[in-house]
Amino acid sequence: MFRQLGLIGCGLMGGSFALALKNAGLVEKVVGYSASAATRERALAMGVIDAVAPNAADAASGSDLVLLAMPVAAIEATLRDIQPRIHPGMLVMDVGSTKRDVVAACESALREQQGCFVPAHPMAGREVSGVAHADAALYQDRLVILTPTRYTQPESLARAVDVWRAIGCRVVQMSPAQHDAALAAVSHLPHLLAFAFINSVTAQTQAADSLAVAGPGFRDFSRIAASEPRMWHDILLANRDEILNQTRQFRASLDRLEQALSQSDGTALHGLIAQASAARAAWRLGPAEP
Amino acid sequence: MFRQLGLIGCGLMGGSFALALKNAGLVEKVVGYSASAATRERALAMGVIDAVAPNAADAASGSDLVLLAMPVAAIEATLRDIQPRIHPGMLVMDVGSTKRDVVAACESALREQQGCFVPAHPMAGREVSGVAHADAALYQDRLVILTPTRYTQPESLARAVDVWRAIGCRVVQMSPAQHDAALAAVSHLPHLLAFAFINSVTAQTQAADSLAVAGPGFRDFSRIAASEPRMWHDILLANRDEILNQTRQFRASLDRLEQALSQSDGTALHGLIAQASAARAAWRLGPAEP
Repeated sequence: MFRQLGLIGCGLMGGSFALALKNAGLVEKVVGYSASAATRERALAMGVIDAVAPNAADAASGSDLVLLAMPVAAIEATLRDIQPRIHPGMLVMDVGSTKRDVVAACESALREQQGCFVPAHPMAGREVSGVAHADAALYQDRLVILTPTRYTQPESLARAVDVWRAIGCRVVQMSPAQHDAALAAVSHLPHLLAFAFINSVTAQTQAADSLAVAGPGFRDFSRIAASEPRMWHDILLANRDEILNQTRQFRASLDRLEQALSQSDGTALHGLIAQASAARAAWRLGPAEP
Repeated sequence: MFRQLGLIGCGLMGGSFALALKNAGLVEKVVGYSASAATRERALAMGVIDAVAPNAADAASGSDLVLLAMPVAAIEATLRDIQPRIHPGMLVMDVGSTKRDVVAACESALREQQGCFVPAHPMAGREVSGVAHADAALYQDRLVILTPTRYTQPESLARAVDVWRAIGCRVVQMSPAQHDAALAAVSHLPHLLAFAFINSVTAQTQAADSLAVAGPGFRDFSRIAASEPRMWHDILLANRDEILNQTRQFRASLDRLEQALSQSDGTALHGLIAQASAARAAWRLGPAEP
């Protein structure tokens, strides 16, 4: 399907993408570049990439598929680096967790060439990172959200859908703004709340006693608080307006529960709990194809 | 070890306790009473109990171990019912999720006989309820918190420790006030936040789109929002002061994160996330014996 993948960023996400493409027989050669020399060498030794490029532009040069698998904050500069090497028929994608900022970076850096770029967010993170954990099955049965713009070429979008499906993803399309609003609600806000919750509990005098009797509910509720700080610093800042919008709505919802509780209004309290319980019980992981 | 268990409340918690005692050969006979006739008959048919009592007092009568496995709100009236049947050497326990209110009910209803009562909170809930789900292994490897008072007879406490250990529990002792403060922090607050979160997200216009792309982080963070409304209505009201104290501290912690975010103070934001991430990564389920 592809002659050459130019992989820019050879960590967990990028390395797993390369392995998945190779396993599926979808690519002949992978040329990789990573900011870290150790990562480049490790990726080569592991067979994740077949050749090391000295920089991002050379990794893109001559490739018909380019994946930017790096922190979102580095995407604009990288797009500027590779812009002179873009040729007709090249498909360029990212794997970032926010999309309005990536689209803005693309417009600014690629201008009339941005039609080749398909913003992508594969929802396949793990607690670990680094090429050492690269896994050909990372994207199997995961959701990938594509956020094409009015500049995205239809043939680029169609090829992007095909490649993610070929490595096992379910593909959903929405606008960059819809993506950032939805992720703020169901991913970014829960992370912020989990960080706030853990900081609140652990700062208390009797924290050790409390944590010693914490059970499975605590374990699951707070699991995402252990996420990687640098990545979540970037995500929260990049999607700040949508997340602050979500915290306002969350606080209003918490106000209603607290008010019922502080007034010992059992009817209102039961109603609010029953509403949440029914809604959560009705939810299932894994949406159908749109 | 015991001649007769008087089981008052034959649902999931009580039924599992009876089965665990029988499996361990710790009881000769189980006499059960439940408010629901259907539950009584089902418990008898399943062999969870060996005989049905017509009321709580008759279930206690002649038993050397009595377990109150019912909503906390019903404990005081039940203790008054069984008070005339209490005899020296009888051990009485409950399984309620809050403890200051149970201790107050015990003082009021049992008075000079309260030494036989050992307040217990086995942390072994499940998503399902009812005697049909009773399971002899429910308490295996679970934590039970005993909250003796200054009136609790040392021999009653020692027998309580023995019986919970014999069915596989790890036993922790703390005061009723310490219990309620600790559980407010690590169980009741997370439930309240999960209820508020789900109500906030599901009330939004674009809720269906957002929930369709929710992933494993959302699943785990919000799982406890599906808990049983009546039980959590009771728990939140019974432990109201400690929970409202926890929400005040949580809001202050959320304020700090929101302030760093709204001011785009990346250093402060990264520091707060890193603090939460390190604290949560260091926590492990399953405390050692105290």
